[in-house]
Amino acid sequence: MRVDVLAVGTELLLGQIIDTNSSWLGEHLAMHGLHSLSQVKVGDNIDRIVGHMERMLGEADAVIVCGGLGPTHDDLTREAIARVMGVDLHLDTDVADVIRHLFSSRGRTMPENNLRQAMVPAGATIIEQTRGTAPGLICPVDRVDGLTGVLYAVPGVPHEMRDMFHRAIAPDLLRRAGRSATIVSRTLRTWGESESGLDERLRGVITELDDVGNPTLAFLASGWEGLKVRLTAAGDDAGHASAVLAPWEQRIRDILGDQIFGTDEQTMESVVLDLLADRGWTLAVAESVTGGLVAGRLTAVPGASRVFRGGLVSYASEVKFDLLGVAPGPVVTADAAEAMAVGVCDRLGSDVGVALTGVAGPESQDGEGPGTLFVGIALPDTEGRRVRSIRLRMPGDRDMMRQLSVISALDFLRRDLLAHG
Amino acid sequence: MRVDVLAVGTELLLGQIIDTNSSWLGEHLAMHGLHSLSQVKVGDNIDRIVGHMERMLGEADAVIVCGGLGPTHDDLTREAIARVMGVDLHLDTDVADVIRHLFSSRGRTMPENNLRQAMVPAGATIIEQTRGTAPGLICPVDRVDGLTGVLYAVPGVPHEMRDMFHRAIAPDLLRRAGRSATIVSRTLRTWGESESGLDERLRGVITELDDVGNPTLAFLASGWEGLKVRLTAAGDDAGHASAVLAPWEQRIRDILGDQIFGTDEQTMESVVLDLLADRGWTLAVAESVTGGLVAGRLTAVPGASRVFRGGLVSYASEVKFDLLGVAPGPVVTADAAEAMAVGVCDRLGSDVGVALTGVAGPESQDGEGPGTLFVGIALPDTEGRRVRSIRLRMPGDRDMMRQLSVISALDFLRRDLLAHG
Repeated sequence: MRVDVLAVGTELLLGQIIDTNSSWLGEHLAMHGLHSLSQVKVGDNIDRIVGHMERMLGEADAVIVCGGLGPTHDDLTREAIARVMGVDLHLDTDVADVIRHLFSSRGRTMPENNLRQAMVPAGATIIEQTRGTAPGLICPVDRVDGLTGVLYAVPGVPHEMRDMFHRAIAPDLLRRAGRSATIVSRTLRTWGESESGLDERLRGVITELDDVGNPTLAFLASGWEGLKVRLTAAGDDAGHASAVLAPWEQRIRDILGDQIFGTDEQTMESVVLDLLADRGWTLAVAESVTGGLVAGRLTAVPGASRVFRGGLVSYASEVKFDLLGVAPGPVVTADAAEAMAVGVCDRLGSDVGVALTGVAGPESQDGEGPGTLFVGIALPDTEGRRVRSIRLRMPGDRDMMRQLSVISALDFLRRDLLAHG
Repeated sequence: MRVDVLAVGTELLLGQIIDTNSSWLGEHLAMHGLHSLSQVKVGDNIDRIVGHMERMLGEADAVIVCGGLGPTHDDLTREAIARVMGVDLHLDTDVADVIRHLFSSRGRTMPENNLRQAMVPAGATIIEQTRGTAPGLICPVDRVDGLTGVLYAVPGVPHEMRDMFHRAIAPDLLRRAGRSATIVSRTLRTWGESESGLDERLRGVITELDDVGNPTLAFLASGWEGLKVRLTAAGDDAGHASAVLAPWEQRIRDILGDQIFGTDEQTMESVVLDLLADRGWTLAVAESVTGGLVAGRLTAVPGASRVFRGGLVSYASEVKFDLLGVAPGPVVTADAAEAMAVGVCDRLGSDVGVALTGVAGPESQDGEGPGTLFVGIALPDTEGRRVRSIRLRMPGDRDMMRQLSVISALDFLRRDLLAHG
């Protein structure tokens, strides 16, 4: 079954907003075994919107239309769908009541143009709004000239669109595809090996999966979010799909081991914070090359304060010498990284310290070229304190080098925590 | 003149890569007075690529095709264009030599499939490659069935695409549009007022510009990059276009004053670092709510080390008390922000200190709700040291609150530096 995507809005064509909805839909349609072969952006022009809808329905079984459901005269998706269906729009009094109530419950008077959002093409089914004011629409097209299919209309606001996709569109599409199947997916987040390296190690599993066809496996390179391995299984219900998926997940876990740092929405930051919380340890970071990015990522996790005490950005060498106790001399070295890790524990009173020193470029420093990273860690040990360091080479330009340094340093700490309990 | 965009690549449809090229092109085409009314993503399938090219050329005067120029069998843009033009591909020996030389100069042997990138449709003009290995193409279409127009092919790698657009495609489009006109644009970056507030203050200028038509003015809200006001002028040559633009830029500068923090590619970080460098002052930051993001942004600027000494992320309250000399008690206060700014100067030996304390949420802290931000600054003064603070309310969720706090804090320092010399 082919499901194409039409994103509506002049601001998308002008680059004022980047259309991420169609990418998200493409990804999630694929997870459901549905094909999205063409995705189009069009401006707020009724003739062009209608033209694209008709052409796209001629090629695909369904089209998901994002945007153009707001209350202004620029919001033309409802009118365009009615034209394509060859029907009139009518006021849905239930939807109008919901919108009125939304305003009155906030103590505001509803501007009259908001009732445009309660206009519905005859024959369409409402997808109830739970967050915004515009409902979504499921609109079957069955014209005398032979044009058939389904148009789904959803708001352009990403979280509203995603909610309606999960709640109404995906189930409706699977029903129309004659599949009672439920989809379950599992994302295994990895770090430490390239996509081609993972592909090689998982070659046997991939070959078998190609034969079996269910579940499917995909790699998703996601920068400092890690390299994701995603399994997607279909089954009669969630229990069945999970049962199909489980043994394959286990095989992949057996092969990749602790290269898998997290599952689904877990991030490297949240995993490291959890590992430390389990041990009752607090953390501080000393950063030079990353200049605060490690601390910035850690504190993006709500509740980080139970573990994270703080950090020292020792950009100038004298700050490393004076505050962290690094011995004067070159600062892009293993010794400096280790001294920084110990120093930040002492200064901030934490149990564990992580330190990064390196060269982001464009210039070299201390005889080291751009891309060089030293990570130092200091942890409590039975004999007092254990200090280790590693030297890594990061690819990419200044920004990418710094971002990959963040996840690499946290991964070094993670592996050490797992290895030494 | 209408110029649509076709982005080629199955990874775009699957959401593995988000298509930012078409947005960028739409923005820059508009700056040149060219219309982009439809932008399409299609996968690596020769029939569908050809189908979209033909249909799009039927509606637009030109189509810019991004991606599909690599060396593998999945890279089908060259073949598709040749089919649409109704011509054969031939090996361009000059391009082949350039590619061979690129490999040999890196001491590597060229895999034979790289010669695919030297295949050129008959009648096409080469856009020389300066960074990657694939040249771009300018391909006039003039078929017996009446289909005419131009197909431009560029690599999908953003910096290669942008370079070719500026260097070859924009001039070629303007020549074909019968415009000798050169476009000059100026982006004025502002902070401190909403888009509607700016719109109100610039209402008179905007009304006049609507009448005059040249230059044009646009607002671009860009998160923690600031709210951009962009003027775009056309003229017979760059000197003429600049002369058209200059008086309008001056009028806007007169109205907005120091609300404009930078011009074109200047960022708030680079501007603040420059202001400090002019005064020979060094900087240190103390961060609580932003957890390292201010330091991370400052150190993203190459050469930040001439001014930026480092920072202290005092996430735990005890770090504020012990290392920064904040008086024990509530830490989301003006007093705490000022004490942190002074403390970080003393600790890191800097002339200037900036401090941020606030509540990112979801929970409240010290009786302050999510969105509250206190910024403290400490600067050298004739009488020793001047300390000030400000209280702000940030909108948005945890991530947005933290990002807007970064630019707001640096803007507070910037305005103070400008006001007190």
